[in-house]
Amino acid sequence: MQESRGNITVYRVIYGDTDKMGVVYYANYLRWFERGRSELLRQIGMPYADIEQRGIYFPVTEATCRYFKSARYDDIIAIKTTVAAVSRASLMFSYKIVRQPDAILLASGSTKHACIDKTGRVVRLEADMARALERVANA
Amino acid sequence: MQESRGNITVYRVIYGDTDKMGVVYYANYLRWFERGRSELLRQIGMPYADIEQRGIYFPVTEATCRYFKSARYDDIIAIKTTVAAVSRASLMFSYKIVRQPDAILLASGSTKHACIDKTGRVVRLEADMARALERVANA
Amino acid sequence: MQESRGNITVYRVIYGDTDKMGVVYYANYLRWFERGRSELLRQIGMPYADIEQRGIYFPVTEATCRYFKSARYDDIIAIKTTVAAVSRASLMFSYKIVRQPDAILLASGSTKHACIDKTGRVVRLEADMARALERVANA
Amino acid sequence: MQESRGNITVYRVIYGDTDKMGVVYYANYLRWFERGRSELLRQIGMPYADIEQRGIYFPVTEATCRYFKSARYDDIIAIKTTVAAVSRASLMFSYKIVRQPDAILLASGSTKHACIDKTGRVVRLEADMARALERVANA
Repeated sequence: MQESRGNITVYRVIYGDTDKMGVVYYANYLRWFERGRSELLRQIGMPYADIEQRGIYFPVTEATCRYFKSARYDDIIAIKTTVAAVSRASLMFSYKIVRQPDAILLASGSTKHACIDKTGRVVRLEADMARALERVANA
Repeated sequence: MQESRGNITVYRVIYGDTDKMGVVYYANYLRWFERGRSELLRQIGMPYADIEQRGIYFPVTEATCRYFKSARYDDIIAIKTTVAAVSRASLMFSYKIVRQPDAILLASGSTKHACIDKTGRVVRLEADMARALERVANA
Repeated sequence: MQESRGNITVYRVIYGDTDKMGVVYYANYLRWFERGRSELLRQIGMPYADIEQRGIYFPVTEATCRYFKSARYDDIIAIKTTVAAVSRASLMFSYKIVRQPDAILLASGSTKHACIDKTGRVVRLEADMARALERVANA
Repeated sequence: MQESRGNITVYRVIYGDTDKMGVVYYANYLRWFERGRSELLRQIGMPYADIEQRGIYFPVTEATCRYFKSARYDDIIAIKTTVAAVSRASLMFSYKIVRQPDAILLASGSTKHACIDKTGRVVRLEADMARALERVANA
């Protein structure tokens, strides 16, 4: 992964993210993935809010997460997001959750997305979207 | 409170509801309040999904919660919901969160709601809605 | 999958589970998975709360979810959980999220878990736990 | 409210914070309140993580929120937190949620907290905690 081609977003863990094991509840990593891809899309000039205004949506069709070490209350974590793949009507992001400042990898994961229109029909990625995504995709 | 005039909905606490103090995170009680009022509306014959299909919405304008004892993982709690007040263009629900089977009161609260249409304008409650709500409101 | 060997738990979708696309937010399926495995463990006689009291924990090491159709507000969904694999110091659950009453498969997924003690050290599953889990595992 | 005596923390709304009405789900404002008071405590030199390590906890005993306008996906909101009251064994925070950059007040609220020890017994605020809190409390 060439880090510079992706997005890095920083987040501080709150109490509400944790569970009774004293660590971040496993579902909340998917919230961080969403935050990461949202910021990546903004960074490459196509904020997801704008995409939606064009009548295009990227619903998640698959999500995976591997958990190596636990994020804890008050940790500052970096969400590193990259575009893993772009095809005609779908795309895939990869994520790494890295604790600050010791750079320990806490989790990694991925999400796959379809490209659909308002009616729910799968549509081809618009040309400018595809270009912007491919420019930052892993070679 | 005349219990029979309200709704009782039962819920099992999951790990994801708890925080690192080992108890249910305080914001999650508001999720239970929503579950309670949703079931009460269904019980009196006007499911909230139907209300929305008529272009009417009940956004929350105020919420309060007092926490007496903590709900914990795997607890079965009863959400007791009543209609506390109905006026021309607003309504109010009251809630009690009671642990099962020992009937300990864990929390109580309330939510106030405006009645608005699709454009966000405050509108009068439709006559049948007002009647159904008043029938179960606390005298 | 032999359904009778697993657990079926029913859940009603609340407003708080949805997002602005009008459907259940993708991370919340992992909350349902947790609810499913918690009920399965109770069903086979070893509630997770009891396991923890013995100083044993099953933290998630990997989670996957594939999303086929969206769950929506007020839907009643069935969480079908089975034990997919049991080994010396880990286990795996499989899940299907099925809408009621039309039995449409909305999502499927899995979680892998380590077996650890209070100090975080990986430990062998205790004999009675392993037996109870293997009894319901898919052959 | 003398703003300079409190804390301002900025947060970007994610999709997972919203509900099917297209706005932030009402319970999530309480998550923001927690973020705000956590940052205020850090700012006055007593991070909540440190307080807990001294065996002191500030569980919420009451929460209120009034909702004026909706926060939406991708909004940047400022959480303005102040110490509203400090007494022997309890404290109270006030919050304002203000949208950026137009400074529209979206919501305001409060939380009351008891001061307890590990055993759950109410205890007096330790002297240095009380002093640090009183220094920033509203006169």
